[in-house]
Amino acid sequence: MAVDYSLYLVTDRILVGSKDFLLSLRKALEGGVTLLQLREKEANSRDFYEIGLKVKEMAAEFRVPLIINDRVDLALALDADGVHIGQKDLPIEVVRNMIGSDKILGYSVSSLEEALWGERLGADYLGAGPVFPTGSKKDASEAIGLATLKKIKDSVNLPVVGIGGIGPANLKEVKETGIDGISIISAILSQEDPYAAAKGLGDLWKSREINEY
Amino acid sequence: MAVDYSLYLVTDRILVGSKDFLLSLRKALEGGVTLLQLREKEANSRDFYEIGLKVKEMAAEFRVPLIINDRVDLALALDADGVHIGQKDLPIEVVRNMIGSDKILGYSVSSLEEALWGERLGADYLGAGPVFPTGSKKDASEAIGLATLKKIKDSVNLPVVGIGGIGPANLKEVKETGIDGISIISAILSQEDPYAAAKGLGDLWKSREINEY
Ligand code: NI
Repeated sequence: MAVDYSLYLVTDRILVGSKDFLLSLRKALEGGVTLLQLREKEANSRDFYEIGLKVKEMAAEFRVPLIINDRVDLALALDADGVHIGQKDLPIEVVRNMIGSDKILGYSVSSLEEALWGERLGADYLGAGPVFPTGSKKDASEAIGLATLKKIKDSVNLPVVGIGGIGPANLKEVKETGIDGISIISAILSQEDPYAAAKGLGDLWKSREINEY
Repeated sequence: MAVDYSLYLVTDRILVGSKDFLLSLRKALEGGVTLLQLREKEANSRDFYEIGLKVKEMAAEFRVPLIINDRVDLALALDADGVHIGQKDLPIEVVRNMIGSDKILGYSVSSLEEALWGERLGADYLGAGPVFPTGSKKDASEAIGLATLKKIKDSVNLPVVGIGGIGPANLKEVKETGIDGISIISAILSQEDPYAAAKGLGDLWKSREINEY
């Protein structure tokens, strides 16, 4: 499957509130989100599964691949397109073994060493960050900055998505690192108009003005 | 695999404290625990996996099957002997599909209806309760009592383990319902001497005095 990593939305139901979650998600997808990660840190397995079924249906409607954060069992149960794991999740080689070669395996890295490790152990793409300081992930480590982001992208043969503190104000310099896309939580979901927020970021990312740099 | 359900220990690392957890567990296994369920509600996936590897090794040493609570991915990653799910976990038919027919599938029920449902959808054993009121499970529903426990056991062709508030004081009446074993958390793990607690309960369960009733 050819995956468009350019505008990768990571969900945070707590940020939006459960009631408006699916509505916000739909608007963001209408605005041009290209890849979707369902992240549920507080839900029990049944609630995760139930919301996952709805999100999967919606993602399919927009032909956007659905990636599940951390929970390999949910990814398998939902037959999602992939799973995204970080340093505090199951070991990457164990996960690859569980999901097989067809499903997308994403891996969070915050250093060049972790990036090379991830590539060697079979990640399909890397989520690198936090690029800038951010308050939207509880367990966010220190910002890695643009230089490390570029070094990571230059050192691996994998799609790299930047995550953490990325928004319209710094999109140009982020794109100049050569990475494949941006991973966004609050810059889309916490906006009053997720459609406009997604569309604005997606258009900006794809625009010639940025491409030509 | 012939499974002895008589003294089924469900872990609670928070009850014991992480530091003494493996030591308490070893003592309980020495005391005669016949089946072990690893239950980690707060740990991240990596910590769950790491503790799971240690617990699996210990369980194997005692030739006691290891069941993982809720997290099918951890059960698969650890190649545990089975998984135990409740009403707030993944749907039972989804779980059976994920783990195949060889792994043990346990199912928590608190009514006859749920018990029949669980049997129909492929559970290998039922954990029925809470039999008596208890404070050791956050999400414990109202006590089902001995009559419902007996009705469940009489209505299914599966091993049934009673859980919730079971201890030396009520073991005799619990056994009179005809169930196959007792599932214990705090009556073993929170005791100063988990060896003696397990041995006492196990001996009592197997004793002729009780059997003859
Ligand atoms: Ni959890």
